[in-house]
Amino acid sequence: MTYEVVVIEGDGIGQEVVPAAVAVLESLDIDFEFATADAGDATKEATGEALPAATYEAAANADATLFGAAGETAADVILPLREAVGSFVNIRPAKAYPGVDAVRPETDVVFLRENTEGVYAGHEDRLSEDLSTLTRVVTSSASRELAEYACEFVADGRGPDHRDGFTVAHKANVMRETDGRFRNEVLSVADEHGVDADEELMDAFATKLPLDPSQYGVVVCPNLAGDVLSDLAAGLVGGLGLLPSANIGHDNALFEPVHGTAPDIAGEGIANPTAAILSAAMLVEYLGHVEAGRRVRDAVESVLSDGPRTGDLGGSATTDEVTAAVVDRL
Amino acid sequence: MTYEVVVIEGDGIGQEVVPAAVAVLESLDIDFEFATADAGDATKEATGEALPAATYEAAANADATLFGAAGETAADVILPLREAVGSFVNIRPAKAYPGVDAVRPETDVVFLRENTEGVYAGHEDRLSEDLSTLTRVVTSSASRELAEYACEFVADGRGPDHRDGFTVAHKANVMRETDGRFRNEVLSVADEHGVDADEELMDAFATKLPLDPSQYGVVVCPNLAGDVLSDLAAGLVGGLGLLPSANIGHDNALFEPVHGTAPDIAGEGIANPTAAILSAAMLVEYLGHVEAGRRVRDAVESVLSDGPRTGDLGGSATTDEVTAAVVDRL
Ligand SMILES: CC(C)[C@H](C(=O)O)[C@@H](O)C(=O)O
Ligand SMILES: CC(C)[C@H](C(=O)O)[C@@H](O)C(=O)O
Repeated sequence: MTYEVVVIEGDGIGQEVVPAAVAVLESLDIDFEFATADAGDATKEATGEALPAATYEAAANADATLFGAAGETAADVILPLREAVGSFVNIRPAKAYPGVDAVRPETDVVFLRENTEGVYAGHEDRLSEDLSTLTRVVTSSASRELAEYACEFVADGRGPDHRDGFTVAHKANVMRETDGRFRNEVLSVADEHGVDADEELMDAFATKLPLDPSQYGVVVCPNLAGDVLSDLAAGLVGGLGLLPSANIGHDNALFEPVHGTAPDIAGEGIANPTAAILSAAMLVEYLGHVEAGRRVRDAVESVLSDGPRTGDLGGSATTDEVTAAVVDRL
Repeated sequence: MTYEVVVIEGDGIGQEVVPAAVAVLESLDIDFEFATADAGDATKEATGEALPAATYEAAANADATLFGAAGETAADVILPLREAVGSFVNIRPAKAYPGVDAVRPETDVVFLRENTEGVYAGHEDRLSEDLSTLTRVVTSSASRELAEYACEFVADGRGPDHRDGFTVAHKANVMRETDGRFRNEVLSVADEHGVDADEELMDAFATKLPLDPSQYGVVVCPNLAGDVLSDLAAGLVGGLGLLPSANIGHDNALFEPVHGTAPDIAGEGIANPTAAILSAAMLVEYLGHVEAGRRVRDAVESVLSDGPRTGDLGGSATTDEVTAAVVDRL
């Protein structure tokens, strides 16, 4: 079987780390057919559109898409792309690696972020000169779908080993109807599946995660809460440079490093390809090649612990040198 | 001049730390007339209402109110009380103290949180069996009022010394109309006042604060962002136990420790009174006694560095012993 994978490098270091991830994919014993597509600031400059319809269609019709990063146009690119692949959950693992400086090295959490609604549903109105509104949307169906996924995720042992079940983080003491609905549906699905679920107010979670990350494993959140709390976890493990993510849909998915375009180092060939390579590992796992995904992750961890390092990790290796080392250790 | 101060102990350790803060206020050379009022879980149990009308009225008509904490009913108590005093800004300093264990000891930030709107405006609807909405509200008037306050705050030198101006944290790349309005108004007020203001997306802020807190000083936020990001800062300085807060209105204000009721240690006389005492210091400063406020803060810092400590800070002193030490060093 041949998998059609759309590759969107985007802007800045996306153009360096995505080819690195593709090189790793090519070295695996899996048949990929790669099709490149454009999006981002440069595309907008050239065509007037940050996300051309052809790119949207390509992603919508592929088996999976690998995306790099976009600059100023990030929201115009990534939000429609998540919709193109019909993604209902954004998976964001945040794990500290041995040998990598981290504020909280014991952090090992996976966020499962609702990926379609909340404030991202995007109904905004300018009601007067003075006043604007945004309609935040929460449905039972999306909340339950996310929760079903979370239950499967933990049942399959895909969460960190140190914690059973999951935590649902929300702000239902203030957003009683909307986050109340989210919380109730998520906890009730967990209950139906016999999954051990606890809850935390999102503000309390933000206090407790830095104080003791080891108490959390899988964390299920509404859209914006998942955005902010997973980025907080990124800060605790040493920044965005190592973090992959997956946007999972029913028969399609999109993979992207959590980091941005890093304009300060773009074009120099020194960007850290780890997050993009780990995103590629999530891609092969999603396509059912769990063993190959694990091999990529093991190779990355091995290189992180005693292989060549890019400048952000205190080394002086190039993107290509790190990528070659990963391929070598596969 | 005599100041009428309403004192609401609330639940749990509120009943221990608020009397401690009142003892400190009584030892100052300022005339207070204290009136106690009830609110919280126990009040709801007894009267059916978490916040009796009499308490609301008392707070609304006082010169200032000192509040402790409420349990399950926290939102039913604190949100109306903020409204009772007409508060438009919630001031939340988060500072690590010498000798107190902190994830990031160099943290010294003050959050100025919008205190009336955002998702807290609270218009929620159940539109169908499946779908609920919340209408998030942002006005130019509230955004500008907060920004005016922020400009005065930094002009008066009330922010941390290491950073000029302020940072506005928002999510205007997604909430373009509402947070866009907030962002634009705040930056334009700063510009009018010649205040140096920069901006950060709230998710990026959550990554960067743990990585390098020293780059931030005063941080201006919408309501929920201020809630979550200030609680994150609390985690970086060692928890909620030391953090005071002020809800400032035009001619009234409410002061409260950021911590909750701590049911695990309530009733034992061992709660740390620091956050409540520092909230009282903010109260006297608000009433214009800046020098007295500074004296209280200096006494607290002195006790924290070499005086008796409660259990949460690794000591074995009681609430009363810590309070007596603070009064002693005034
Ligand atoms: C660029 C932005 C729209 C996006 C989001 O908020 O989802 C980003 O922060 C992310 O988390 O991938
Ligand atoms: C209790 C709750 C409503 C409140 C809030 O969200 O404002 C609390 O978290 C706080 O920050 O004081």
